[in-house]
Amino acid sequence: MNLDKAFAYIDANQQRLIDELIHFLQIPSISAHKEHDADVAAALDYDRRKLESLGFMTEVWPTRAHAGLFAERHVSNDLPTVLIYGHVDVQPVDPLNLWTSPPFEPRIADGKIWARGADDNKGQHYAQIVGVEAALRGGGELPANVKFIIEADEEHDGEAMAAVLPKHREKLACDVFVVSDSNFPDRDHPAITLSLRGIQALEVTITGASGDKHSGEWGGILYEPIDVLRWVLQNLKDFETGRVLVPGFYDDVDAPTPATRAAIAQRLWVDADVARAQGVKRLSHEVGYTPLESGTLRPTLQVNGIQGGYTGEGFKTVIGNQARAKISMRLVPRQNPEKIFDSIERRIRELVGDKGTVAIHRFGAGLPFWSDPDSPYVQAGLRALTVAFGKPAIMLAMGGSIPFVPQLVQVTGASCVMMGFGLPEDNLHAPDENFPVANFLGGAKAAAAYLAEVGAMAGAAGRK
Amino acid sequence: MNLDKAFAYIDANQQRLIDELIHFLQIPSISAHKEHDADVAAALDYDRRKLESLGFMTEVWPTRAHAGLFAERHVSNDLPTVLIYGHVDVQPVDPLNLWTSPPFEPRIADGKIWARGADDNKGQHYAQIVGVEAALRGGGELPANVKFIIEADEEHDGEAMAAVLPKHREKLACDVFVVSDSNFPDRDHPAITLSLRGIQALEVTITGASGDKHSGEWGGILYEPIDVLRWVLQNLKDFETGRVLVPGFYDDVDAPTPATRAAIAQRLWVDADVARAQGVKRLSHEVGYTPLESGTLRPTLQVNGIQGGYTGEGFKTVIGNQARAKISMRLVPRQNPEKIFDSIERRIRELVGDKGTVAIHRFGAGLPFWSDPDSPYVQAGLRALTVAFGKPAIMLAMGGSIPFVPQLVQVTGASCVMMGFGLPEDNLHAPDENFPVANFLGGAKAAAAYLAEVGAMAGAAGRK
Repeated sequence: MNLDKAFAYIDANQQRLIDELIHFLQIPSISAHKEHDADVAAALDYDRRKLESLGFMTEVWPTRAHAGLFAERHVSNDLPTVLIYGHVDVQPVDPLNLWTSPPFEPRIADGKIWARGADDNKGQHYAQIVGVEAALRGGGELPANVKFIIEADEEHDGEAMAAVLPKHREKLACDVFVVSDSNFPDRDHPAITLSLRGIQALEVTITGASGDKHSGEWGGILYEPIDVLRWVLQNLKDFETGRVLVPGFYDDVDAPTPATRAAIAQRLWVDADVARAQGVKRLSHEVGYTPLESGTLRPTLQVNGIQGGYTGEGFKTVIGNQARAKISMRLVPRQNPEKIFDSIERRIRELVGDKGTVAIHRFGAGLPFWSDPDSPYVQAGLRALTVAFGKPAIMLAMGGSIPFVPQLVQVTGASCVMMGFGLPEDNLHAPDENFPVANFLGGAKAAAAYLAEVGAMAGAAGRK
Repeated sequence: MNLDKAFAYIDANQQRLIDELIHFLQIPSISAHKEHDADVAAALDYDRRKLESLGFMTEVWPTRAHAGLFAERHVSNDLPTVLIYGHVDVQPVDPLNLWTSPPFEPRIADGKIWARGADDNKGQHYAQIVGVEAALRGGGELPANVKFIIEADEEHDGEAMAAVLPKHREKLACDVFVVSDSNFPDRDHPAITLSLRGIQALEVTITGASGDKHSGEWGGILYEPIDVLRWVLQNLKDFETGRVLVPGFYDDVDAPTPATRAAIAQRLWVDADVARAQGVKRLSHEVGYTPLESGTLRPTLQVNGIQGGYTGEGFKTVIGNQARAKISMRLVPRQNPEKIFDSIERRIRELVGDKGTVAIHRFGAGLPFWSDPDSPYVQAGLRALTVAFGKPAIMLAMGGSIPFVPQLVQVTGASCVMMGFGLPEDNLHAPDENFPVANFLGGAKAAAAYLAEVGAMAGAAGRK
């Protein structure tokens, strides 16, 4: 393919491509709300018809929730295969009164498209579709085989599509899997996201005496659930070093390589500036790591919620008979969420002993994921972003979890490149979500360039 | 006076005295509810008229809330003076549907009077009034000068009456001050309560970043208010020893004397039985003290409420930007609530440092109070209870706080004897409050016997 022609195609068709995205964004495909079921299906159909117009074979894959879409354009057995991910469903829009304009009436202002889903994830994956269109129309044929897997329940039952992946293993076969569901750190630095942390969440409930007790009468005599809980928590993480104290927690932890530490240090990140922006006096960190590393390349433990006793106005001298905490651990390769859950559960039960009754509920888990910064697929992504945006691309690590990514990596055995086009200020999951027009069009160019890069690797790296 | 005659008077007038209490209990004197203001005044008037019928001079003392009552029958400058305390107001009655019969329609069943206020405190202080009546009618004249101080806002603004005490200092002058607002440990052991703990309550709020943050993105980077809070808590009390870690906390603490430890050990208290009754596997205690001592004679710290982050159904990967805890400390002589508050406030601020923003709100305080088990007034109380109930009386320590008691001790400089007639199962502040008829009538006999005991001390101990 001819990349210049593909870029020229995008420039020439700019208004029509933006209009297509706007139509897409007009569909209120809120997967969490039953009354929008038809809209979610319509959004999936919008992608399906578009991809069919580009010569893709499509299939709708039922799941326990909203069905997803699979699409494929096979060019040649001699070319590598790129699998592209996206999701058509969006978050709810409450509180509606905080939106400057209605969430499903997209408008363009200040160089941005304002609408629910503009970034997450309609805008981001539609940029990929447009990139494929440009590669095709600008070059005559695609430089690689291309497949799409598109979810329609990511914002609601996040695991519905993942659950059906294993049974489609053969169809999903690919050399590299591309996800556009992440950010640049700022508008001047296009970026590849190198890693995601895994997650294991749980809730601990500690019960004491049969009912609330008067704290004057019983203070000093009864073990107090709040007290037992805070003691459990202090034994799960050392506050001063930031080290998790659960036995075996670090056993399977891969230390980040010097290359990875160097790669993520490319990012413009000044602790004092970040602290100021977050409204705090200083940042925390795990001993031996920078705050940025602690929040991305290192595992950690958070208490996401805590409650016990009397929490209303004024004061009640009560010993509440229950206290609970919601806890999540962020994991890195090769920590296994199930094994980690078993360790923390055992430790909590051991700590509580006969000082109370403990109930532990396991919430969802996600696997961690790391790319190798030296991977040819990552390097290809950096080159594609650089040429598309005209600025040198960098590498990032992400502290959050996208469980679908490592699951698809597991099913396909392929490399994964997270090439997202968003910005931190796009207001994901919030009122006034937006996506810069330049990132939509630049993203489309990067998607086309990436296909060209991967296509060119066929000769050099050979087929898997 | 002739005690046998006084007891015979109570026996002979039993039904009429119970009927008087029942009429008193029919008045819905809920001080917390504005619409019952007239009822509260009517209840106070009920006591006033009764005491006037017994030849008492009465005065109504205005306070910032409901007015209280002062009454006095002066017999002779050569006799000691006993000041008796009570309150006519009662707790609200919600939830009404849990009452077996309407709270202000007293009925007698299973040997108990069932009604709101039956024990707390109408029944208990009316027993004292009946005791005075019996001493007078059975003996011709009272064996001591007697004064009453009766609150009408104890269950609402608990400090309204205390606030006016200093300006009535001269009128309140007495040798001993008697409070019937406590319990026997069980129906077989009439008891004097030797001590009350003081209290200092506060709320700590820790604020982190400007708004809730995604715990994937920021976990490991930001100090988390819940985490800072549990670290503060772990530095305020050592979980394993039960020792409070606030600097200086124990500086002014009086160790209980061997006599006091021995006195409270008279109480039937088997740790394993108490644990079973409370629905727990074992009791806690401060190192070096029994659970009973830890809950009565030793100071301690409780977290009465804690809240932070997401506490609803399911899970949210959020770092809440605020966490708060309600904390109370129970104090013993000679700890000073104000000094203790200053120490804990200083320590909390030092611990939080620049890891968050801290706000500390001081709630109410109460002074601690201890009687000497060897005091002649306490010994007189034990004899009075023993003769009235026909069972040997013992001594107790109480873990809770009744701020009015040490305040009145401070104002009068008098001894205090806590001679309550309730039982642990009387359902104070709860549905189906009740008071055994035997405890009402026995309490009246004990009150009469106590006046005889104190009157007899005049010659031996002399006037103060």
